[in-house]
Amino acid sequence: MSSILVFQSDFGLVDGAVSAMEGVSIGVDSDIRIHHLTHDITPYNIFEASYRLFQTIEYWPTGTVFVSVVDPGVGSKRKSAVAKTKAGQYIVTPDNGTLTHIKKYVGIEEVREISETTNRRKNTEASYTFHGRDVYAFTGAKLASGKITFEEVGPSYDPDEIIELPTVETEITADSVKGAVDILDVRFGSLWTSITREEFLSLQAEYGERLEVSIYNHDNLVYQNGVVYGRSFADVRIGAPIIYINSVYRVGLAINQGSFAKAYNIGVGQQWSIEIRKIRQ
Amino acid sequence: MSSILVFQSDFGLVDGAVSAMEGVSIGVDSDIRIHHLTHDITPYNIFEASYRLFQTIEYWPTGTVFVSVVDPGVGSKRKSAVAKTKAGQYIVTPDNGTLTHIKKYVGIEEVREISETTNRRKNTEASYTFHGRDVYAFTGAKLASGKITFEEVGPSYDPDEIIELPTVETEITADSVKGAVDILDVRFGSLWTSITREEFLSLQAEYGERLEVSIYNHDNLVYQNGVVYGRSFADVRIGAPIIYINSVYRVGLAINQGSFAKAYNIGVGQQWSIEIRKIRQ
Amino acid sequence: MSSILVFQSDFGLVDGAVSAMEGVSIGVDSDIRIHHLTHDITPYNIFEASYRLFQTIEYWPTGTVFVSVVDPGVGSKRKSAVAKTKAGQYIVTPDNGTLTHIKKYVGIEEVREISETTNRRKNTEASYTFHGRDVYAFTGAKLASGKITFEEVGPSYDPDEIIELPTVETEITADSVKGAVDILDVRFGSLWTSITREEFLSLQAEYGERLEVSIYNHDNLVYQNGVVYGRSFADVRIGAPIIYINSVYRVGLAINQGSFAKAYNIGVGQQWSIEIRKIRQ
Repeated sequence: MSSILVFQSDFGLVDGAVSAMEGVSIGVDSDIRIHHLTHDITPYNIFEASYRLFQTIEYWPTGTVFVSVVDPGVGSKRKSAVAKTKAGQYIVTPDNGTLTHIKKYVGIEEVREISETTNRRKNTEASYTFHGRDVYAFTGAKLASGKITFEEVGPSYDPDEIIELPTVETEITADSVKGAVDILDVRFGSLWTSITREEFLSLQAEYGERLEVSIYNHDNLVYQNGVVYGRSFADVRIGAPIIYINSVYRVGLAINQGSFAKAYNIGVGQQWSIEIRKIRQ
Repeated sequence: MSSILVFQSDFGLVDGAVSAMEGVSIGVDSDIRIHHLTHDITPYNIFEASYRLFQTIEYWPTGTVFVSVVDPGVGSKRKSAVAKTKAGQYIVTPDNGTLTHIKKYVGIEEVREISETTNRRKNTEASYTFHGRDVYAFTGAKLASGKITFEEVGPSYDPDEIIELPTVETEITADSVKGAVDILDVRFGSLWTSITREEFLSLQAEYGERLEVSIYNHDNLVYQNGVVYGRSFADVRIGAPIIYINSVYRVGLAINQGSFAKAYNIGVGQQWSIEIRKIRQ
Repeated sequence: MSSILVFQSDFGLVDGAVSAMEGVSIGVDSDIRIHHLTHDITPYNIFEASYRLFQTIEYWPTGTVFVSVVDPGVGSKRKSAVAKTKAGQYIVTPDNGTLTHIKKYVGIEEVREISETTNRRKNTEASYTFHGRDVYAFTGAKLASGKITFEEVGPSYDPDEIIELPTVETEITADSVKGAVDILDVRFGSLWTSITREEFLSLQAEYGERLEVSIYNHDNLVYQNGVVYGRSFADVRIGAPIIYINSVYRVGLAINQGSFAKAYNIGVGQQWSIEIRKIRQ
């Protein structure tokens, strides 16, 4: 087992919370190697946490232990869990929907509930609000460093019981695909949709072909225009929109060197649907 | 001695300042392990720097060397110091108030003034504005890696002389405790007060009990309401306020999944006082 | 060769892009040591990327491999390159102007175009938008870890062909120096000019001497005042302006504990010129 820990949270980096989790992990094993996915998950946004894990996990080696703490229910009855993916990586997290995308698109081989009697830092019983430090970082570090086995995390339970957030299934017709705007490529304002490359390819669009894109917020049409399908941003002029396959192999919608999300006030979530339709010649 | 360096500053991560400090440290010893507390201390805010050190230091192993650079007086006569805590950790910092909380709540065993004739990078005499790179990171790396001993930092001086910022003492009566709003849990907008868990427990409040909370900006009352005392946020409904013991074992005030600070425009500092009072049945 | 990788990009840390690059690098060699310059380069701002490399590179050991990805032309015909500096460090980057300052002020010994047939991650042929992950991080990690030699990066080309952004030459007279506002010390709002310490010293100004500073946006005068030349901020009162030599040995202009850029709405770039003139007694 490698001893790589990768942290994610909605804590931000402005205060000492993440540093405390790092210190606890180094205290478990001074040779542990700590990396970070992001700590800028929108506060309480479990869907985002789930998506960012899915976006990155495949690029990390087998045995990597992820610790993801977006935990609006801290102190409630939600389970604390460690999931083992089919690719042999581990995710330490509250079982609150954070495992949604991993369960659906990567696959979970086994999941265990963290036993807090053995896998909680000593003398933290009077602290009820920072399981990220007292339970998750501590357990993740013990697992990554081999101080406990996966079996010693606690009792296993049925992966089917893992909490899932709703996701949108793509609707495919002969000349259209329809899905949701899942998330933004935040920095560049590109829309990342739930439509996979394979689903999109069913349209048999050619590079350079113009397709009709319609975006709805609930039932209100907020964008409708012909957009070129290209390989990457440089295939269109600066300021022009483009349909492309993004780095997680899903359909993206961008403006070359601009922000599609800001330009048209597009948000994310299931209520933001996007339809891409072939234009009849 | 471990070779762990933990950096803190008000430099932000937007430019190359922190990276230059890392490079200098790696240049001293390529095996040194660099971590970060935060670089988002409000510019020039020494109180915040002091608090964040206090918030995290106990979670790091003995021998860890912290380098904290919030240094509005760079180039003035303030001392450059290395303090050794009673727990055997080191803090490299301008002696400008950054050691306030460590001195008061952790204890400083010994403090030494950095001798710049020996512990300054060569050929940096024409640079007067970046002691973080030229003196603090350099000295911290030499100390962490064992290239110099603590004694070789420079001459020791009396820990009583270490500059302290004013802090607020809790006022306790039979049915009330009164302190200040020290700092925010920035990301979630919770108020972290100066009132310790032990001081609060003198009220003998039970979980679920409602207490009267009054917050003043100087003498102006800005908030007054009954608030439930709970273990953690999940003990109250979403949107409801809660009194709780935070992760540094002090009284916190939050809104479950909301921001108390934003909701009532609460600031931090000595002028923001908070009183918690038992409600007579 | 050391196995230190230093990443820079305009990706921000909000999503999983940087983490994916880290994971890819760890997958190449689990012992590789990853550091970061900044990921907050203004999106698409190649000049900033070039400047930040120049600002920090000399503080890192020989053999360090930098991976800088500010790549508005991803998918276009711009070259992917690895430059070797005269100081023996490597920079993996699109050849789009990112090497401007290094070429001019540090010197480039040799440059090679990355051969994507051998130095691209397998099975990423359908991804056209994330060369940072699929080509640059991958190649950087292989080079840093010694899995490929510099020669195996790909064919060398003439360093004179490296794309350069325009920079401003300092105009020197008997009693004045004139240059541009290159960049900000973002967090503190100080102006960093293109005028070097040596050029400024030709004025033979003494510490404490007042000099006339004029700042123009194109031809419009936006600031003109006498400003004291000092060693560091503490040489003037809080709120007072100061001319100083900054940490990269160029002329800086700051307000002690204030923001010069915000106070006078000063921007950066070639159209922002600054003239410093001796005041006749």
